[in-house]
Formats: sequence, structure tokens, C-alpha cells
Amino acid sequence: MQFEISKEYIDQLKELVASNNVEGVNTKIETLHPADIAEVIEDLTIEEAKFIYLLLDGEKASDVLVEIPDNDRRRFLKVLPPEFIASKFIEYMDSDDAADVVADLDEELQKEVLNEIEDVEQAGDIVDLLEYEEDSAGGIMAKELVSVNENWTIATCLKEISKQAEEVDEIYYIYVVDDTEKLKGVLSLKKLILNNTNTKISNVYNADVKLVNTDTRQEEVAEIMDKYDLVAIPVVDDIGRLKGRITFDDVIDFVREEAEKDYQMVSGITGDVEPGDKIGELLRARFPWLLIGLLGGILGALVLGSQEDALKNVTELAFFIPLIAAMGGNVGVQSSSIVVQSIASGVKNVETTGKRLLKELLIALSTAAIFAVLIFVYNFLSQGNLDLTFSVSISLFIVILFASFFGTLIPLVLDRFKIDPALATGPFITTMNDVMGLMIYLMIGKMFFGIL
Amino acid sequence: MQFEISKEYIDQLKELVASNNVEGVNTKIETLHPADIAEVIEDLTIEEAKFIYLLLDGEKASDVLVEIPDNDRRRFLKVLPPEFIASKFIEYMDSDDAADVVADLDEELQKEVLNEIEDVEQAGDIVDLLEYEEDSAGGIMAKELVSVNENWTIATCLKEISKQAEEVDEIYYIYVVDDTEKLKGVLSLKKLILNNTNTKISNVYNADVKLVNTDTRQEEVAEIMDKYDLVAIPVVDDIGRLKGRITFDDVIDFVREEAEKDYQMVSGITGDVEPGDKIGELLRARFPWLLIGLLGGILGALVLGSQEDALKNVTELAFFIPLIAAMGGNVGVQSSSIVVQSIASGVKNVETTGKRLLKELLIALSTAAIFAVLIFVYNFLSQGNLDLTFSVSISLFIVILFASFFGTLIPLVLDRFKIDPALATGPFITTMNDVMGLMIYLMIGKMFFGIL
Repeated sequence: MQFEISKEYIDQLKELVASNNVEGVNTKIETLHPADIAEVIEDLTIEEAKFIYLLLDGEKASDVLVEIPDNDRRRFLKVLPPEFIASKFIEYMDSDDAADVVADLDEELQKEVLNEIEDVEQAGDIVDLLEYEEDSAGGIMAKELVSVNENWTIATCLKEISKQAEEVDEIYYIYVVDDTEKLKGVLSLKKLILNNTNTKISNVYNADVKLVNTDTRQEEVAEIMDKYDLVAIPVVDDIGRLKGRITFDDVIDFVREEAEKDYQMVSGITGDVEPGDKIGELLRARFPWLLIGLLGGILGALVLGSQEDALKNVTELAFFIPLIAAMGGNVGVQSSSIVVQSIASGVKNVETTGKRLLKELLIALSTAAIFAVLIFVYNFLSQGNLDLTFSVSISLFIVILFASFFGTLIPLVLDRFKIDPALATGPFITTMNDVMGLMIYLMIGKMFFGIL
Repeated sequence: MQFEISKEYIDQLKELVASNNVEGVNTKIETLHPADIAEVIEDLTIEEAKFIYLLLDGEKASDVLVEIPDNDRRRFLKVLPPEFIASKFIEYMDSDDAADVVADLDEELQKEVLNEIEDVEQAGDIVDLLEYEEDSAGGIMAKELVSVNENWTIATCLKEISKQAEEVDEIYYIYVVDDTEKLKGVLSLKKLILNNTNTKISNVYNADVKLVNTDTRQEEVAEIMDKYDLVAIPVVDDIGRLKGRITFDDVIDFVREEAEKDYQMVSGITGDVEPGDKIGELLRARFPWLLIGLLGGILGALVLGSQEDALKNVTELAFFIPLIAAMGGNVGVQSSSIVVQSIASGVKNVETTGKRLLKELLIALSTAAIFAVLIFVYNFLSQGNLDLTFSVSISLFIVILFASFFGTLIPLVLDRFKIDPALATGPFITTMNDVMGLMIYLMIGKMFFGIL
């Protein structure tokens, strides 16, 4: 039922394109949904993709262009003339998609494309949208919506909707405004159908409407729409005039992208990559955090090197270096990721930062105690060297305490300073805890073995 | 504009409840959206929550119950009599929510509640839905939808919709079926409004409708709805009869939950926890992976212990233990998480497993070469002990290769065997790489220092 791209399909398509077989290519793609064609195009070269785009009618070509990843789109548009971008793509797009595409172009090309758009009203809408911050409600909203005046009857309303509905793909809600374009409420299509045509709009609309301001941050828009299960939300300006609307599909994409970003951060990957990407991109995404790991490792080597005598005298101390480092790292990642996730999911909690740290301290104390006892028992039973047994247990206890504390505190502090708290997860926290853990461990070890 | 819970609000509410001030509590909550009340209730005790529920009318009480987390709901419903659950909550719910709530009850209580539902048709719907696998389209769909016969005119249609629409919150699409209830296509409300009332449905509906089967897995449903930006999707049985529909809000929740699950897995956290949870729950969620980390650390100590002589003779070898372990761990997590994320996001790629592993091998070779050279240069310049310099560089090279390889392979293998590939990320892969890295490092070190 759902279209699945197979290697055979791609190979056949490539052959048809290579042999300039327009009819053959057409047969292969004409029944596909734009989202499917976008997937197919990702497996083609730019030249092959261009061949396909030229075959599609404007509506479909622009739908496909909206679906392909930003990077690919940028690369592709660079090789096209401005009037072609305007007439073949932009003019068929909703204003939000058009603004996204135009925003991605170089400044010079932007102006050229905007001037090539024949429908001046549309060009104006795009320019308006480009004024807003990219990650604000204004930056993601579309201008296309259906609005009616509160003083109209349902009959007038229906007539007006037929006019406006042409350029709106899906209506979802009808927005009710007053004479000054201020948003008064919403009217569902259901109500419109179920009421008498002489009824006045002002008697049936719902004034209790969730809305956002053009300045509202994207995260908050997603949070509100998700929380209240809204399929679309109206966007108003500072004096309440209806400016646009944001639909659920933008929110799904946003939620997914945000989650992916945090996931990649905790995994030590920079930038949005997939296994299908080019080797160079994948390498670049992995390099930064590995370099930090390497520097942390060198710092660790320096710490250990400064204690060479101790390690020479008591070689057993070296045995538990990996254990101390691993436990510190794991505890740190756990603590930081719980905090990051709760910040990301926007869970408002009445717990204050102080209370949260106190609770984390209790958890850290319990965890530290449990694992210190476990490793104590193991070491006591397996070898009986009491100095080593005490050194390892007490160090582990302290390292877990520190790792929990910093793992919780650092993302909270970053968030307070408006820096992405996810930066503090993954390799950052493990590297930091590695070095700190080693110092604590060696100090305590030397104390117990009387070589301080 | 959006409701924000403050500590003052909760404290005031708790006081009003404590003093049995019905009117005061009502004033405080009556303007709130059910989703907001659900958030408020999470900060109250069960007894306080019960007080609030009793004040709400059935519609609102059931909306609130649907919004609160599963665990809290289960705890809360346990203290209520079955007839109360049926009459106060279930009867006001859509069939999908009702089935979810009933499914969560103990088997004994399930039967009692089902028998208490007055509307036999609704009870039947719930029983039907309970038959489907929980994570299939059948398990998440709702029975409430608006369907019309293809032979009707738009006028008949409008009349029928007024009848059906009462129990459907939002219509979104009108589903067109034939006389045998088989799904033929969809009709948008827009078309319904814009066409003449004498038009026959069969002339205006859209037959090219995306649909899923009752057996389709939840993941695939989310993927399809996300890809094609669908606000709702119809669910059919094996012979194509319309059985229910799934709406976008279920998909947003699912996408978010899946992302959170993978995130927690890579962070070494078991189960769905938040900083606001009880200390016991938070401890339980962290314990399993820390225990595995501890066992890995003990294994590492055994490996190092077996090479005590080598470490005693060449203490410098110990200095780079943390570096080797950290790099192996970081590379492993990066590799596995890229694979897991691409599996989770359902990206279909024409690359075969073989090709993917080959590519990962190239990336691993480059990464390994880069970092082996970096550490070689550092060691060469900083101390000039050539044996150590070569040992560390060559070990790092091999460890990065192994870590990449296993990091890529293990999640792919798990997925092939239908085990959650995310299991192979985070602490699992770091622990495995720690131990393997140590063995490789010591072996190579001994070779270079001639003590093999």
C-alpha cells in the first residue's frame, strides 16, 4: 500500500533518465506522491534530479522541492536561473514554504527571485514573512488561511469561504475577526455545516481560542499545540490582529528534529547526519567530540603521569582506573540527560532548582552507597587487600557523588544562560568526569597506601 | 496567554481543598483547559485529586483523566468503584481513549467496568478495540468517524453528517464507503461546502486515499502520517472494510515517546522517568546500566590484573588506559546511535547492510588514522619514548576500528532479530569497548616493550 523504494526501482529509473526516455520516466513516477518522489530524488545525482523536475507540473514539482532536505535543496537551486525558481517552484507554494525556500538562497539570488514572482501579493507575503525571526511563530506560520467577519451570516460566510478556500489546501478552522482584523475566535467547519444559514457568526463562534503571538518561540508553539492537541493555531501581532496560522505538520517535524538533536548531542555527534550521508559529512559530524575525548585522555595521562611513583609502588591501583572512569561517566550522563530531557519536553514543575539539587543529592548518595558497598564486597572477597579495597570503594563513592552533582547542575546552569543544555550531555560530561575521577582516585589511593 | 502552574497556585489550591471550600476550588479551576487541570493534578495527592475530579462534570473529568500519565491514572482508578469509573469517565470518552483506560485495569475490574457501561454500543466498541494488538493500528484507532455512502448526494450527506457528527469531536475527513462498508475514498469538508447539494458523492470524492490495515504496526502508521502530512488516516480490515481512524495527536505523542525512549537508552536510563518522579523510581531507572558498568569495570580490573608484571615494569602504559577506554567508548556510541536513529526514523535506504558496513569501515579507517596520528605527534613531542608512542597510537587505531565496527553491526543484528536496536547504544557499547580496548592495548604494549 505504501510505496517502498527498491534498488531495482532506482536502477531502472537511472537507466531511463540516461537514455532520455521521457515517457518511460513519466510512467514510473506519475502515480507517486510528492513525498515519495522526494525520497527517490535523494538517491539520484543532481543532473538526474533536474531531469525529473522538468517533467513534473509546477504544483507537483514545488511539493517535491518542499519535501527534500534543506542541504540538497540549496545545492539544487544554486544551479537554476532565478526566473525558473520563481515560476516553476515559488509561485505554487504556500507562503511559509516559499519563505523557507527563499530564505535559504544567497542574498543576491533572493532579490532576483522575489522580483521574478508574478503575483505581487504573494511576493509581498513572502517578504513580510522573511521579516520575522526564523524560529518564532511569525517565521514558521503561513499566510494562507480562511477568515470571516463576525458580523456576517453563515450564508455570506459560505460564499466567502468558496473564494478564499481556493488557495488554502486544508481549512481545519475558520478564523473569526472583527472589522479591524483582530482575532475574535474560531468556527469549526462542523458548526458551519450544522447551523442554519441565516445564523449570525457572532452567535456561534468559539471565543475561547488558543493563539500565539508572532514573537512566540517555536518551542513554545509546539508545546502548546501538542498539549492541547491542536491541528492548527492562529498567530496574532501585538495588538491582536490575525497574521497567519501554523499547522500540525510543522509541529510534528519540529518535535522530531528537536528530539534528534538532543539524541545526537548525547551520542557525541555534531550536526544532522544519517548513515546515507557522504563519508566526509559523517566524519565531520564525529570529529569535534572525539577531539575533546582525546584531549581529556591526554589530560588523564598527565594526571596519571604526575603520580608515576605511586603507580609504580602500588600497581594494583591501576587495575581500577577503568572502573572509576566508567562509573563516573555513566552516572554523569544519566543525571544530565534526565535534566536535559525534562527541559526539552517543557515539563513545568513546581520543584525549584534548590529542591531538585537536593533530591539529586539524595539519589546520588544512595547510588554511591550501593555501588561502593558492592565493589567493597567484591574486592574484600576476591583479594583481601584492605588498603586497595577501601581506596576503590571510597573513591567510587565520592566520584559518583561528584558526577551526579555536576551532571545535574551544568545543564541547569547552561539553560539559565540560554545555552542549549544538551551541550552538557554525552562526551562533555564523561570526559570531565574521567579526569576528575582519576584525580580523586589517586589522591585517596595514596592516602590509604600511606604515600601521600 | 498560556496557563503556567506556579507554586503559589498549587499551595492555594491545596489549602482550599483542605478546607473543603468547594466554591473556591471551582473558581480556581473552572476556566482551565483539561490538559492544564491534568498538570495541576500531578502536583496533588491522590486524595486532593479525587476532590477535584468530583467537582468536574463528566465531560471534563474524563478529558482530564485521558491527559494524566498512565502510572498516575492506574493508581487513581484502583481506589474507585467500577460503576463510578464507567459512569463518570468511560461513558464520556472516545472509544480509543476508553479502550486504553480499560486495558490498563486489572482483568477482574475490566469486566466489572465494561458491564457497568450503560451504552451497550460503546461497550461493544471498547471490547472490539481490546481485541487488537496494543501497538497495531487497530489498537490505537478510534471507532468514532463520519462515513457516508458513495451513492448519496451531498444533501443526504449533510443530513447524515449532522447525525454522526455529534459523537465525533473533530471531523477532518469524511470517509466514503460502498454498501458493504468497504472504504472507497475520502471527501474533504471543503469539497462538501463548495459543491452543489445535488451532486452525487461518487462524482466528487477522492479515491487516492492513504490508509492502513488494522495489523499495521504503530511505527509504520506514524511514519506514513508524518511523511504525507495527514491529519487523520482511515484503518481498514483485511477485506478493506472501514474500521476506524487514527488522528495526528496520537502520532505526535508517539513520535515524542519513541524519541524519548531511544534517548533514555543511550543515556543508560531504564524506563520513562522525569526529575519530578519519586526517588525510588529514579534510582530503579538508573541501577541496571550502572550495574553493567560495574561488572565491566571489574572485568577490566581482571584484565589489567592478569598483566600486573607488565604494568609494574612499564608504568607509563597505565597512563593511557583512560584515553584508550574513552575513545573506544565515544566512537562506539557514535556509530551505534547513527544506526539506531536511522532505524527509528524509518529512513528507507537503498544501501544494503554490506555497503553500509563497508562505508562505516572507511569512516572508521579515516577516524582511526587521524586520531592515531594526533596522539602519535603528541607523545613523540612530549616525551619521545618511542615504544610507548607506537603502542598507544597503534592500539588507538585498532580500538577505533573495532569500536566502529561493533557499534554499527550490533544494532543492525539486533534489529534483524526484532530486538530493539537501541539496547546496543550507550552503556552497553562503552562497557564492551572498554574491556576489549584494554586487552588490545596491553597486548600491543607488551609487544613493543618486548615483554610478551
